[in-house]
Amino acid sequence: MAVQVAVCGPGECTGRERAEAREVGRLLAGRGAVVVCGGYGGVMAAVAAGARSAGGVVVGVLSGADRAGAAPDLTVALPTGLGQARNALIVNAADAVIVVGGSWGTLSELAMAMRRGRVPVVQLGGWRVVDGDGRPLAGVRYAADPAEAVRLTGLWD
Amino acid sequence: MAVQVAVCGPGECTGRERAEAREVGRLLAGRGAVVVCGGYGGVMAAVAAGARSAGGVVVGVLSGADRAGAAPDLTVALPTGLGQARNALIVNAADAVIVVGGSWGTLSELAMAMRRGRVPVVQLGGWRVVDGDGRPLAGVRYAADPAEAVRLTGLWD
Amino acid sequence: MAVQVAVCGPGECTGRERAEAREVGRLLAGRGAVVVCGGYGGVMAAVAAGARSAGGVVVGVLSGADRAGAAPDLTVALPTGLGQARNALIVNAADAVIVVGGSWGTLSELAMAMRRGRVPVVQLGGWRVVDGDGRPLAGVRYAADPAEAVRLTGLWD
Amino acid sequence: MAVQVAVCGPGECTGRERAEAREVGRLLAGRGAVVVCGGYGGVMAAVAAGARSAGGVVVGVLSGADRAGAAPDLTVALPTGLGQARNALIVNAADAVIVVGGSWGTLSELAMAMRRGRVPVVQLGGWRVVDGDGRPLAGVRYAADPAEAVRLTGLWD
Repeated sequence: MAVQVAVCGPGECTGRERAEAREVGRLLAGRGAVVVCGGYGGVMAAVAAGARSAGGVVVGVLSGADRAGAAPDLTVALPTGLGQARNALIVNAADAVIVVGGSWGTLSELAMAMRRGRVPVVQLGGWRVVDGDGRPLAGVRYAADPAEAVRLTGLWD
Repeated sequence: MAVQVAVCGPGECTGRERAEAREVGRLLAGRGAVVVCGGYGGVMAAVAAGARSAGGVVVGVLSGADRAGAAPDLTVALPTGLGQARNALIVNAADAVIVVGGSWGTLSELAMAMRRGRVPVVQLGGWRVVDGDGRPLAGVRYAADPAEAVRLTGLWD
Repeated sequence: MAVQVAVCGPGECTGRERAEAREVGRLLAGRGAVVVCGGYGGVMAAVAAGARSAGGVVVGVLSGADRAGAAPDLTVALPTGLGQARNALIVNAADAVIVVGGSWGTLSELAMAMRRGRVPVVQLGGWRVVDGDGRPLAGVRYAADPAEAVRLTGLWD
Repeated sequence: MAVQVAVCGPGECTGRERAEAREVGRLLAGRGAVVVCGGYGGVMAAVAAGARSAGGVVVGVLSGADRAGAAPDLTVALPTGLGQARNALIVNAADAVIVVGGSWGTLSELAMAMRRGRVPVVQLGGWRVVDGDGRPLAGVRYAADPAEAVRLTGLWD
């Protein structure tokens, strides 16, 4: 079975985040990875478009109970009907998690990925979490661009 | 996006059910449908093998939190970590549901598909449900063989 | 911690089912059991009313993401936002499952309870499941009235 | 139906967090609120103990599929079998969310509560989230002690 990489990010994003997500998707598909995402707009639609442009397989794990609003470039749309609980599924499906940009929903995915703890978690832009003394928490890998984000997953070392 | 058909059935099945599930998978993939299944053994593995033999895309929606035990012929394995609650997801993902053979888990998927009520539900073999007076309940379509099961979905009329 | 009994049944039910569910709830609360149900109308509201009339604790595990439509007699309403997947939670919470009346949603709960297999499952009225040869399946305990339903759980032997 | 308040926090916590959680539980139960928590150790067990000491109702929404490891002071233990996806349920059940202490699991609950956006979210100690420019994100209310945490929910204004 192919390597699976989750790419998480906000449904409303900046143009830069959109471009970065698209490039991340293109690079992952080019390496043969299946891309798993939330399946809607913004970063999710962009990573799907990028992966599809490289002939890849993209699964959208939707929060809704049907395929309404699904990104057009998904290979498979999986309407979970779970609401936000679906964020846990995106994380469970991944051999590595790449986070592009920041939002509360995105942060919940980052946090569950860190809580799960089995796979690399890479952040490209977005929010930061600090402990009660203002110190950054260990564990997240920070990338400066899409190529570094894919490289920091360590999946192709 | 492609048509998606869920194929449900027991993890421990008869040789006949296995052969029927494989043929259902082959026929569905031949028509360009994405096959969604529970992703483990028995009917699930057989439908995946059949779909793959025809070059199709098969998604296994696993009850476990990782890919342990996943059928080898899946294109994508989605470990939900939801236990039996994942049965609802298989149903939500489907434009039609085909049930091959009987088990309590399989019956729960049939029942949730009927409860959802939006898509055709076709049964090939397996158990029967009757009301308090012993009368069969309306709504399920019964097929005699894999070709009829695929035809009764009505997706290619 | 108290014994927990799930009582499942349709949101639209007959007067007889409503009366039976209410009596089941009353009897369970009288024995100190926490009642777990789906939290909406019909059998669910009736079992909650019965349990409350005896001073019991009733938890409604709702399919919706908020408390809209919750039965008035619940002690706690837990809006899961999971849709039908919440049926699995009702079953997981139970030391015994009592099913009153029949519907597709109710059948999915019965089936998941039988699939789980750890606890007694008692049916009062409702639908029947038969195998491919028309023979009843082993395992479900059939009660003729609410008192027998509670007794057949075996929790107070 | 009673007001419901979710109290979230790590399973492994400091003595101070434990004491604060216990006091939060006691204060909430004293005001008649049902307390919803994750149902295991640390902050979860402490808030349950506090609520119970004041005669309150406490629901533990467990990630596991059975009641193993549940805190002793729960009124009801709801084993969801959903893994981390259960965090969304705790948030959905709440008229207000109080977070005591920090961990990745706790942060996922905070993030989903903020994403849901319908109810006040109060933090007592714990981690902080900042945007890409290092600025704190708007919306979370910060309390200095348990009494202020309960007050900042605004539920008893």
